[in-house]
Amino acid sequence: MNHCYSLLYRTQLHILQLLQELGLQTYPQYTSGHAVMQLGSARVAKYRSDSGIPNLPLHSLIDLQLFIWKVERMRKLVPPGDPGRCLHAREWDSMTVETFKQKNLWTQAAKDSVDVACSIVYGVDASRISLLYYLYYTSCAGGLFPLIETTKGAGQELKIKGGAQQVCELIVKKVGRQNVWLNQPVTHITQRADGVTVTTAGGRTVQAQRVICSIPPHLAGRIAYSPPLPMERDHLTQNMPVGHTIKYVVTYRRAFWREKDFNGAVVAYDRTSDKDGCDTGPIQIAYDNTSSNGNPALVAFMCANYAKQWASRSADQRKAAVLRKFAEYFGEEAKDPLDFAEKDWGMEPYNGGCPVNIMVPGLISSFIPALRRPCGRIHWAGTETASLWCGFMNGAVQSGIRAAVEVLSATSPQLLTEDDRQELVAVPQEVETPAKEAHRKKSKKVASVLVGAGLVVGTSLAVYYYIKA
Amino acid sequence: MNHCYSLLYRTQLHILQLLQELGLQTYPQYTSGHAVMQLGSARVAKYRSDSGIPNLPLHSLIDLQLFIWKVERMRKLVPPGDPGRCLHAREWDSMTVETFKQKNLWTQAAKDSVDVACSIVYGVDASRISLLYYLYYTSCAGGLFPLIETTKGAGQELKIKGGAQQVCELIVKKVGRQNVWLNQPVTHITQRADGVTVTTAGGRTVQAQRVICSIPPHLAGRIAYSPPLPMERDHLTQNMPVGHTIKYVVTYRRAFWREKDFNGAVVAYDRTSDKDGCDTGPIQIAYDNTSSNGNPALVAFMCANYAKQWASRSADQRKAAVLRKFAEYFGEEAKDPLDFAEKDWGMEPYNGGCPVNIMVPGLISSFIPALRRPCGRIHWAGTETASLWCGFMNGAVQSGIRAAVEVLSATSPQLLTEDDRQELVAVPQEVETPAKEAHRKKSKKVASVLVGAGLVVGTSLAVYYYIKA
Repeated sequence: MNHCYSLLYRTQLHILQLLQELGLQTYPQYTSGHAVMQLGSARVAKYRSDSGIPNLPLHSLIDLQLFIWKVERMRKLVPPGDPGRCLHAREWDSMTVETFKQKNLWTQAAKDSVDVACSIVYGVDASRISLLYYLYYTSCAGGLFPLIETTKGAGQELKIKGGAQQVCELIVKKVGRQNVWLNQPVTHITQRADGVTVTTAGGRTVQAQRVICSIPPHLAGRIAYSPPLPMERDHLTQNMPVGHTIKYVVTYRRAFWREKDFNGAVVAYDRTSDKDGCDTGPIQIAYDNTSSNGNPALVAFMCANYAKQWASRSADQRKAAVLRKFAEYFGEEAKDPLDFAEKDWGMEPYNGGCPVNIMVPGLISSFIPALRRPCGRIHWAGTETASLWCGFMNGAVQSGIRAAVEVLSATSPQLLTEDDRQELVAVPQEVETPAKEAHRKKSKKVASVLVGAGLVVGTSLAVYYYIKA
Repeated sequence: MNHCYSLLYRTQLHILQLLQELGLQTYPQYTSGHAVMQLGSARVAKYRSDSGIPNLPLHSLIDLQLFIWKVERMRKLVPPGDPGRCLHAREWDSMTVETFKQKNLWTQAAKDSVDVACSIVYGVDASRISLLYYLYYTSCAGGLFPLIETTKGAGQELKIKGGAQQVCELIVKKVGRQNVWLNQPVTHITQRADGVTVTTAGGRTVQAQRVICSIPPHLAGRIAYSPPLPMERDHLTQNMPVGHTIKYVVTYRRAFWREKDFNGAVVAYDRTSDKDGCDTGPIQIAYDNTSSNGNPALVAFMCANYAKQWASRSADQRKAAVLRKFAEYFGEEAKDPLDFAEKDWGMEPYNGGCPVNIMVPGLISSFIPALRRPCGRIHWAGTETASLWCGFMNGAVQSGIRAAVEVLSATSPQLLTEDDRQELVAVPQEVETPAKEAHRKKSKKVASVLVGAGLVVGTSLAVYYYIKA
């Protein structure tokens, strides 16, 4: 799930409510000043990220905005709770995002923008994702804007004071530390008529009435089930590979980028670097990661094919590449950090990747009902099963509540309130989000730019023909 | 692997040589008389399968032939041993076969023909496969013809006298029955500096210098490896889901279809039946399955989405549907079989599907080197790793020989001959196959039909304009 980015949006009500219950506080992501964008190997462009308009050539901006409008129109036809019900499900599920991109974009900078957004959001490149899944994921987030808005312009982003890890720690305290077994990966789940037995690699067993399985789908598929799960569920987990992201947290004495009117935000993509052995990149996204008590830091990510290429190099090579890029963007001070930490989620056997398990073409048309449907006494949670902010921390919390209500309605229905039961409905109502409002405002701004540009071009042509005549 | 179809081609040299070693004999598939084709829900067309030209409207035949020629031109650019080296690899791997089909075909009957071929050959529908993988698979078989030729026209097909199961049984005898452990699925493989330990679900362990893992990739991905496998290998197995096929063998007193000049071959597809609960279909392919000693039988398959839909019904419903279809094609005698057997490969936990594990879009571009590259002391065999007849019995044998030579060249290189070492080269030379020759002959025949049709249309137009003028 997207906790590797550790950012929250004000529309992520499930996680925000949980933070409140746990007594955790948030603080806003630092966004004042200039962001940096680098598409292709040469040009580094800076722009004010609160303008919401990246520094792209005008024709690429127009191209990109038309694409965004098209995706927004299409994603509204995809119900977040049940994408298979979309009237165009089969058509859109038969196509990769890459095919759709090539069909609908004509400038390289706009294509690069879609590519980099795809690697960051999903951890895989556009050729690996079903278009229908892309629209569904967008629908679950309430629009494309929160997903592609990597410039931190709208001030939507919040961070958890003290770090996201506290959520787990405080839940463990509530549950009782003795009830949480670490280093006991589950290897077998055996169902009988009267209960379930869960066995771990360490040989411990648990007897239960119900099991909630909240690990990523491809790992859920590696548990041995007895009796075997239905074929549909088995095929679902074969078709939801996980993305790949490597995270870097670089701590400094001073937030020198802020002093130069940078906010630390970077979006970078060089399509030529998809080839093995090519040294471009390697950062796709970075932002200010200064802690709530003021320790200056930057955080950066290598995603998708970049992650794959760089994972096989030495840690020193990766460190040098990240610092070189920071120096190129923010100055030579970047080469002298206090601390440098990296985390390759692809190296974690009980995680396998980051930020989310995607859906390949054809999966939704064939196997989506198996995503949430319980298999006997086994219920499925995890952010991939969420209908609101699927792939994010919010989705994990929402899916956990939904699975808990499922179990209670099977075992102790008298305990449930009407509000609880609402959790079983994938999406209670169309969610109007501040993110969408902000996007409308930005769209208007871009539209004004386009109208202005149109007027300039039109007037010039009129003058040209007038002179020529 | 494609043993569910149990057919061999004369170009499948590895399996034919193994049969010879084991003293097994082959006999030709019965192909005399008419085949049946049903595209859409109503029309049942019969045609002589030795003509090689299915009974489609002329414009659909032209459409289909142009498509076949295009695929043939493209697949020749995809090296069977190493599809990632194709110059168009990224472009073709970003696209599903469905997208390619929609772009290149304009008649419904031609589209249906490609769809049914896809379900039969891969056990999944066209929306789930990478175009590059489709071309690669075709290249591994030496051309599209052996893959799409379901009408048994060319007399290429051979069957093993006494059944394909004998191959395993005779190998077990050679190896020694006490050395083959049944019902001992491997759960753990632990590598150390000096050897490997393999542990089974029954708790038995084996110490070895090397391990050859020859199970389907998605199942290889479910074994717990210590230390964990490289990320690339782990992601490969996440992106190679298995197809789904249900097989039916129906035995009769008399081969009544032969008496009516049918050869038992059926190809059927109704695109409207992809919806759950729809009662069309359910057979996509059938053929004569009379044994070498003359016991009359038909064999039929439900593939891809049909298999998924029908798997959830009762065995009686499936039996009734299969017999109803046979009666529609060959007469009421079909409803009175001596024996009716079905096998749903999707219900086998240590197989999971049939006929092959496919590759989803983007996989080859990113992860193909991990397909055959050994991970320390673990070597990878299985038909999916073959470069000649990948997905078929031949591929299984070829990959087994290649993996054995890999192990020997690591442990006892002095034992290897130059011929043995050739097995490590994916494809020693461009393979000219009888299948290709036969295809050229058929292409010529179709070309003559097309030229004839062109002359008729041209003359008619000339006459029309002459009269009009």
